[in-house]
Amino acid sequence: MRYKKNIIVLKFGGTSVGDKDKIKRVADKVIKARLEGNSVVVAVSAMGDTTDRLIELAGKIASSPSRREMDMLMSTGEQVSSALLAIAIQEKGYNCISLSGQQAGILTDDVYSNAKILNIKVDRILKELKKDRVVVVAGFQGVNIDGDITTLGRGGSDTTAVALASALKARYCEIYTDVDGVYSTDPNVVNEAIKLETLSYDEMLELASSGAKVIHLRAVEFARKHNVILHIRSSFNDIEGTWVMDDYKKDERMERPLITGVTYDIGEAKVSIFGLEDKPGVAANLFGKLADVDIDVDLIVQNVSEENFAAISFTVKNEDLSLAKEVLNKLRNIRIEVDTDIAKVSIVGAGMQTHPGVAAKMFKILAEKDINIEMISTSPIRISCVVKKSRIKEAVKALHSGFGLAK
Amino acid sequence: MRYKKNIIVLKFGGTSVGDKDKIKRVADKVIKARLEGNSVVVAVSAMGDTTDRLIELAGKIASSPSRREMDMLMSTGEQVSSALLAIAIQEKGYNCISLSGQQAGILTDDVYSNAKILNIKVDRILKELKKDRVVVVAGFQGVNIDGDITTLGRGGSDTTAVALASALKARYCEIYTDVDGVYSTDPNVVNEAIKLETLSYDEMLELASSGAKVIHLRAVEFARKHNVILHIRSSFNDIEGTWVMDDYKKDERMERPLITGVTYDIGEAKVSIFGLEDKPGVAANLFGKLADVDIDVDLIVQNVSEENFAAISFTVKNEDLSLAKEVLNKLRNIRIEVDTDIAKVSIVGAGMQTHPGVAAKMFKILAEKDINIEMISTSPIRISCVVKKSRIKEAVKALHSGFGLAK
Repeated sequence: MRYKKNIIVLKFGGTSVGDKDKIKRVADKVIKARLEGNSVVVAVSAMGDTTDRLIELAGKIASSPSRREMDMLMSTGEQVSSALLAIAIQEKGYNCISLSGQQAGILTDDVYSNAKILNIKVDRILKELKKDRVVVVAGFQGVNIDGDITTLGRGGSDTTAVALASALKARYCEIYTDVDGVYSTDPNVVNEAIKLETLSYDEMLELASSGAKVIHLRAVEFARKHNVILHIRSSFNDIEGTWVMDDYKKDERMERPLITGVTYDIGEAKVSIFGLEDKPGVAANLFGKLADVDIDVDLIVQNVSEENFAAISFTVKNEDLSLAKEVLNKLRNIRIEVDTDIAKVSIVGAGMQTHPGVAAKMFKILAEKDINIEMISTSPIRISCVVKKSRIKEAVKALHSGFGLAK
Repeated sequence: MRYKKNIIVLKFGGTSVGDKDKIKRVADKVIKARLEGNSVVVAVSAMGDTTDRLIELAGKIASSPSRREMDMLMSTGEQVSSALLAIAIQEKGYNCISLSGQQAGILTDDVYSNAKILNIKVDRILKELKKDRVVVVAGFQGVNIDGDITTLGRGGSDTTAVALASALKARYCEIYTDVDGVYSTDPNVVNEAIKLETLSYDEMLELASSGAKVIHLRAVEFARKHNVILHIRSSFNDIEGTWVMDDYKKDERMERPLITGVTYDIGEAKVSIFGLEDKPGVAANLFGKLADVDIDVDLIVQNVSEENFAAISFTVKNEDLSLAKEVLNKLRNIRIEVDTDIAKVSIVGAGMQTHPGVAAKMFKILAEKDINIEMISTSPIRISCVVKKSRIKEAVKALHSGFGLAK
């Protein structure tokens, strides 16, 4: 099928379609892609704070509204923005149609408010592309087997875009955002931060999970699993952004940098638990209880046991802190300490897999600045350290220059 | 099927669900109907001015947005209010589910923004009623055969309710509004106005078309055609409203009143055209051109022809006046006069069919008050007169007391 060959998927977030002028600007972006000879499918989020306003409205009616009805309610936000974008594209003289998640054939499971995409029946989208239409799909939503509307949870529109790109066998999926791409670190903290041209999925995953907010983790995981090439770029200019793709697609003659980025996260708190019995199953029980109430635990450190009592420290998102304390207070004979004056700094790079000594270098750089490390966690391509919140910018700057990432 | 026997349909308009407190009050109404032993289906309009705001937003993006996309856009208003009402009903401890027009099985033709209901597949609604759930259906909307969202045009939610009542073989359909029912005339003008207990469909049609705004004409037509009993009542109290049903259901021993109501309309203008050629087809051509641009013409009067030139006067809604003038100005050799200082007063009553002299009595009552009649139009159960706008309240009062309608 010829028309399939040049399909690309573009995704625009809520700030990109925040008002009528922004919607018109997005329409120009879409038309530009169309004029470059692509069959264009667009996934779009709700305008600005629409979703928050709907949640607030429901909150005034019920303290804990049913998730099925919340999805019915919230999915309207993306339906509005997709229709308005279609109207803006038509106004500029181009064929266009908006489709709800249901009309776009996005079938999900039954988990309201946090549904997973099971399948996309692309017939309708292909039919519209054949008619030479731009197709604007309402992001963040789908339907379950009964035809009831579901939403995909956080980062849902990113996931919609990547899933559409996969189902349509699109050449790539462009994620439009408010920055020019993925940087070696936060340019607001380090002037010398450089934009990264290419990243592997693993690197993007580690960057996204340790602080870079350009794309949602879940969408990157989906892209990696289904081998969807991502292009993360700005909706405010035409500059080439950052490509995320499989390692093997990179030019092998290029020397891989040791690390590609430094990220930080000031949105977590450290919880320490003292007096836990040091026997098998205690940690499993503890973190099981937290998982039961949907609390994501990040770094975990368990110290050496003293007299059969263990101490465990972990970090959780600040917004989950009070719920975590509530859960932990039900456990007997333990003492809890909470430290909100912490921040996490991470270095990420596929190159560290084949270079020993990266962790040692990181610790040395921090030590030279007299920055104390409170917790450490590593993955094959990431090392994270928890430090005092007041020292975080200093730590980021030191690591960024210490690993030679500066311009 | 037992559960079908006691189905009733309730309809709440946009002002009834205008904010969170009003939605909670509607939830109480619905639960009351549920507790009285009914299987309850609710049709609901968009909250307050939602539809107007969406139209305004689209208008800022395109001067004439496509109707298909406008329907996609506007249908979200009813989806929001239906989900919020379902949340409010659940919060009070009752089983409830909201359904979009599509989920409720409302199939329409392809005429975006003014679609007609072709069929309602009630399987899903019946399934939910069997589960002992209240079913809240988003009014004003359906889908065409391709699954694209359509809206039903003005009075759409009234039509949704009546069509649901018909398809579900409901006992009756309650239209909740901001008045206690249908009055013999506007209580704001005539203190002695009385609430009517029962009306025939024809009477309701004539009342609705000549000024009473409690229910949309189209919904009454649908109700008459499918024999759906209507109950028009207030959403602010529990007082019995006005029942609208077939003549034969009335108590035949009761003497039918000569007239049931006096209505008026100050939203029309009179257009007079002079110098038209007096030959066949001239009027057809004239009104055909107005119909082409969707202008509804109300009263039409053609005078005796003088020297082969005819004069035709008709009334149109004020909001259609400028478009009507535009159309008429393209016709050659005619002169147009517009009078916006007019109002229409009508008397309605199925009784007049069997009582001659009602028109004469109406003219006499107006003459006694020295109110000049500029145009006259009659139907089998209605007589309308156009008078000076400044005399309209006087005319309404005189007719209301002259025909003995006062308390």
